[in-house]
Amino acid sequence: MDAISRLMQPRSVAVIGASADPKKTTGRPITYLMKYGFAGKVYPVNPKADKIGDLPCYASIADLPDAPDVAIVLLGAARAHEAVRELAQRGTAAAIVLASGFGETGDEGASRQAALMQATGQMRILGPNTIGLVNLTDRIILSASAALEMSGLEAGSVGLVSQSGGILGSILSRGAARGIGFSKLISTSNEVDLELSDFVEYLANDPATQVIALYVETIRHPERFRQAVEIARLAGKAVVAYKIGRSEAGARAAISHTGAMAGSDRMYDALFKQIGVIRAEQFNDLLDICSALTTTRKLNGNRIAVLTSTGGAGTLVADSLGVAGFETPAPDFATAQKLRDLQKGDEAALDRNPIDVTLAGLDPVLLRGIIRAVLASPLYDALVVVVGSSSLAMPDLVADAIRDCLGDSDKPILAYVSPHAPNVVHVLETRGVPAFLNPESCAVAFKAMRATTLSLPQFKPVSNVQGIDLIAHQEGALNEYEAAQLFSQFGIPSAQTQVVHNAQEAVTAARKITGAVVLKVLSSAILHKSDVGGVRLGLTPETLPQAFEQMVMDVRQHTGIEAKDFIIQPMLRAPAELIIGMHKDPLGTALMVGMGGLTAELMNDSVLCLLPPGMIVSDELALDLLKQLKSWPLLDGYRGKPKLDVHSVIKTIAGFSTMIASLGDRLLEAEINPLLVMESGQSSVAADAVVVLTPKGS
Amino acid sequence: MDAISRLMQPRSVAVIGASADPKKTTGRPITYLMKYGFAGKVYPVNPKADKIGDLPCYASIADLPDAPDVAIVLLGAARAHEAVRELAQRGTAAAIVLASGFGETGDEGASRQAALMQATGQMRILGPNTIGLVNLTDRIILSASAALEMSGLEAGSVGLVSQSGGILGSILSRGAARGIGFSKLISTSNEVDLELSDFVEYLANDPATQVIALYVETIRHPERFRQAVEIARLAGKAVVAYKIGRSEAGARAAISHTGAMAGSDRMYDALFKQIGVIRAEQFNDLLDICSALTTTRKLNGNRIAVLTSTGGAGTLVADSLGVAGFETPAPDFATAQKLRDLQKGDEAALDRNPIDVTLAGLDPVLLRGIIRAVLASPLYDALVVVVGSSSLAMPDLVADAIRDCLGDSDKPILAYVSPHAPNVVHVLETRGVPAFLNPESCAVAFKAMRATTLSLPQFKPVSNVQGIDLIAHQEGALNEYEAAQLFSQFGIPSAQTQVVHNAQEAVTAARKITGAVVLKVLSSAILHKSDVGGVRLGLTPETLPQAFEQMVMDVRQHTGIEAKDFIIQPMLRAPAELIIGMHKDPLGTALMVGMGGLTAELMNDSVLCLLPPGMIVSDELALDLLKQLKSWPLLDGYRGKPKLDVHSVIKTIAGFSTMIASLGDRLLEAEINPLLVMESGQSSVAADAVVVLTPKGS
Repeated sequence: MDAISRLMQPRSVAVIGASADPKKTTGRPITYLMKYGFAGKVYPVNPKADKIGDLPCYASIADLPDAPDVAIVLLGAARAHEAVRELAQRGTAAAIVLASGFGETGDEGASRQAALMQATGQMRILGPNTIGLVNLTDRIILSASAALEMSGLEAGSVGLVSQSGGILGSILSRGAARGIGFSKLISTSNEVDLELSDFVEYLANDPATQVIALYVETIRHPERFRQAVEIARLAGKAVVAYKIGRSEAGARAAISHTGAMAGSDRMYDALFKQIGVIRAEQFNDLLDICSALTTTRKLNGNRIAVLTSTGGAGTLVADSLGVAGFETPAPDFATAQKLRDLQKGDEAALDRNPIDVTLAGLDPVLLRGIIRAVLASPLYDALVVVVGSSSLAMPDLVADAIRDCLGDSDKPILAYVSPHAPNVVHVLETRGVPAFLNPESCAVAFKAMRATTLSLPQFKPVSNVQGIDLIAHQEGALNEYEAAQLFSQFGIPSAQTQVVHNAQEAVTAARKITGAVVLKVLSSAILHKSDVGGVRLGLTPETLPQAFEQMVMDVRQHTGIEAKDFIIQPMLRAPAELIIGMHKDPLGTALMVGMGGLTAELMNDSVLCLLPPGMIVSDELALDLLKQLKSWPLLDGYRGKPKLDVHSVIKTIAGFSTMIASLGDRLLEAEINPLLVMESGQSSVAADAVVVLTPKGS
Repeated sequence: MDAISRLMQPRSVAVIGASADPKKTTGRPITYLMKYGFAGKVYPVNPKADKIGDLPCYASIADLPDAPDVAIVLLGAARAHEAVRELAQRGTAAAIVLASGFGETGDEGASRQAALMQATGQMRILGPNTIGLVNLTDRIILSASAALEMSGLEAGSVGLVSQSGGILGSILSRGAARGIGFSKLISTSNEVDLELSDFVEYLANDPATQVIALYVETIRHPERFRQAVEIARLAGKAVVAYKIGRSEAGARAAISHTGAMAGSDRMYDALFKQIGVIRAEQFNDLLDICSALTTTRKLNGNRIAVLTSTGGAGTLVADSLGVAGFETPAPDFATAQKLRDLQKGDEAALDRNPIDVTLAGLDPVLLRGIIRAVLASPLYDALVVVVGSSSLAMPDLVADAIRDCLGDSDKPILAYVSPHAPNVVHVLETRGVPAFLNPESCAVAFKAMRATTLSLPQFKPVSNVQGIDLIAHQEGALNEYEAAQLFSQFGIPSAQTQVVHNAQEAVTAARKITGAVVLKVLSSAILHKSDVGGVRLGLTPETLPQAFEQMVMDVRQHTGIEAKDFIIQPMLRAPAELIIGMHKDPLGTALMVGMGGLTAELMNDSVLCLLPPGMIVSDELALDLLKQLKSWPLLDGYRGKPKLDVHSVIKTIAGFSTMIASLGDRLLEAEINPLLVMESGQSSVAADAVVVLTPKGS
């Protein structure tokens, strides 16, 4: 067995600094080991005690009869590393270090954390600052979480990895109260050694786990995470993440909490989307989604039947489904007929959706018949059953009826429980019916179920690394002309450009062009030309000389630079403008596609696509990115306007991603702003270009 | 006493169709009346029973010893109106009709509903299709809701009016489980007589009610609602509404449910905003907000301290506060010093926010000291205390500590409970501390508390009704020239316009203008000129004749109209364009202000402002509307561009609202599209205008 397996299923556990007082944090681990019937050996270590419970207590690690699989280290931050060193020397497989006061608390803590890592040797470490782990499949509790005071913790198929011990306790207790069972729960916290991804991989290979839930503050090694999630995906297991740090306040709090330094939240979104991790938006969505996905039922469309015996609650569910983009069509004729045949009487509303069964909701036989009829209808992809106040007197009624119908159909079936009825929720969950307390949760769960059926964005390996030779002798910012030349290597057309050095050359160049021209200063020292008077639009051979002189003066005044080089380009008008850029971040390099123009900029209408190393975007993916823009219709023939040349935009995006993959670490910044998008048939054109390279030696 | 007071606090109650079986819906009302110790007289009416419990049963309404204050009618839809007629004839103050099968179920139901209304006479009706009402202040239960099976329902200060009986039960049971107490709960449902607004007014005057909660499917009489909410506002009581129908599916479901025909959801938003009703976005937000507002504490800023003994949960709260726009600054120097003096030790993180008190969270004296120190800091406007898993063993700890500090400060204090701990939530709520199960709820509650401190939008009465004479002889669509003349009456400048009738006149007109001109067809029969070739931009005296001929042909081809009148306007370019319009709806007439241009249109960047009858927008309100646009910065000097002439835009908006108020019902449609917004100092100009009037006689 490898160390992680020994950590998760140890045959022997030493508890360093164990207390005989079960109310103390240091007393809890042995209490919980015993309470859950751990069958292996338990070695308390405490020089001040002879026995803890019925267990003989050892004075030191050196006194232990053999090297334990796992040691739970309950000593304070100042002494933990000593115990860790001794445990490592004895050949312990893994240590769980609970103390806080390490990397999350400033300089002193950071040096303690360094000492801890240095002491570890070959032994694996979980923590520090962890609450430990809980293996409910095998009833092995290696944790001090007060949430384990709860009774009735049942094993199930949700595996949780949490970067906070407190959140582990919160999710465990909330799940247990609802009847959602867990396989394993692991708190990784400061992650000096074992980290999130190690346990994602472990759970991906764990037969008892069906869905992997994550509480994420940071992902320290994106490539490792990507691999672990891929293993889970191939094993048919969904990964669901709740990540904090959406706001600056939250990101700051996370740093204080576990020392997490994270990339931007949008990059996490991009990463999750790229590798198929489902993101829970609100905290309780995490459990709702896990509950739904443990059924492994697939949602193959967006038409939902809502069955209710209480009109208002059915309306709540239908309304929130509608807001989330689901449809709730009225039953087809045949189904409505079946429903009417089942239930005679004029009060039930069976020809609509929500299908209001009124009192029939209280008759088990009738209810089963109605559920079967609705599930059999090809019109519906899934069913929500609303449980009303009458369930308070009959908590099993709906759960039994649904359970009896589960075998008839593989469509998803969810329950929304309208009154406060924790027992009803528990009965439903333990019978395999995801049961929600919030009407909005049905839509959240269905969206997650739908997401698991979608294919991941398609990248392709960069086939033809190129352009490196072109930049071999360059560094820092390229000027616009050089940047355009580099772009052209990747099939990205730029506006026709003539380099000129004085007003006379400028006029000669302008005369070769039909229509007005643009004059720009050309200098790698000037990144923002417009801001220093270095761009003049709409000039003619007549107005050029004076504009030229003015530009020389303006640039001199703003930058102190005596401009020598200029370019003349035709003045192009385009029906739409895009911005294509890149974004480097601890999580990797992303391609950015945004709509140009001030309004779109104000609305932040852009998408990020994280690029796996060495990969580029396919044409299909480039189109998909464009369609994710809120203003995509502007490219697609909006309100009777002509369609724009999306084809050349796709080629530009693909070429831009090829440039990123080809130039690798040498490329620091690159942007096309604007990319002028023309009408169908006319290629789009990069009208300005920025490229910044690392120094040559690097 | 008036009829509604007699309904809410009856001295005698007849129960028509009462059953002796307490498990039947028809058995519940008497069971609940007795269970809650109703002190008045109860008259069961049922020809088939002699006694119900200890109460003598009457064979008919005619046999009753006297006219009851209230009758609960439990008969089916087919017979309810007969009982109602008899009750009315006996002089009953109000009847509660539970049966469904009326207006919500099609033609037959609608005719039953008509019969019911006809039978009512002077008697007031609650329902039909209602679950009745619950007066917990006086422990008078006139309801069949199964939610009343719960034990331990405590009276409190939240009054609920629900247009669904099932939702009443849901909210009652959920609130009671959390420790949120209610004063009165009323289900109005089909509202053939008594409606939402009647009970809003009742609760506004009810000393036991502090906050009024609404479950809304439709508002049948907006003016009545507006008045009732104003009475509540003057009484210092917040009104909080959860309204369904945000999606088409939800609106359809509501019609099936209580026969509600509603206006558009955006108009409800506009109405609520105008009169200060706080809208709950998610269903459970309704209770969260009510819980927070019953404290009557005011949130006077947006800086929140988060106190936690469990890092992860504190991070959740801080992150969701940040997403909602609140700030969580680190403690000021003096407060941090106070906190350090209270708690020696290096593990607590007291110089940051969340303020992590670690183990001090378990010491009541220390915890009180820390809470007091934080509340005393002028840096903070409010406090969230996070309750961790340790509370499972000590459910009173945090509640006691906060309660002891409530008197020290009038700042809002909320609690977030991280583990599943219903007893802790209950203890907190019953001691006056709003306690939330979702980290996001803290932000929701603070936003609502902040909203109650904001002043309402300022309208002013239309002082000078005008323009009526100008349209006295007109009807239907005005042509653009007439519309512009009408606008000018209200101080709205239009582009300089010359009416022409042939190409020669057009050329002459164009020669009077510097720069390019616009040619438009002028016809009240053509509303969308561009679509039929009726607008040509950028013309010169040279290109006009040919464009003129082409326009005549195009218009003829598209519309069959032989155009006779045209206009010539200068071709104006503007740095921004707005759309000013109006929207008529069952809820009233709204002014619409939107950013022009395709991108803004795609993003739906517009605001609606519902106009109270006879009122117009003040200059302050007009500016506030503009600032609500996401693209407002475009008008305000975005990215170094010059500021635009907002002053003239404000005058145009105010003038447009004066036009709406002046022309009243005669105005069907009006729009300025686009309003060209110029740089500061140059007035904005209406470049196109639409006005549609009702027929003259109407």
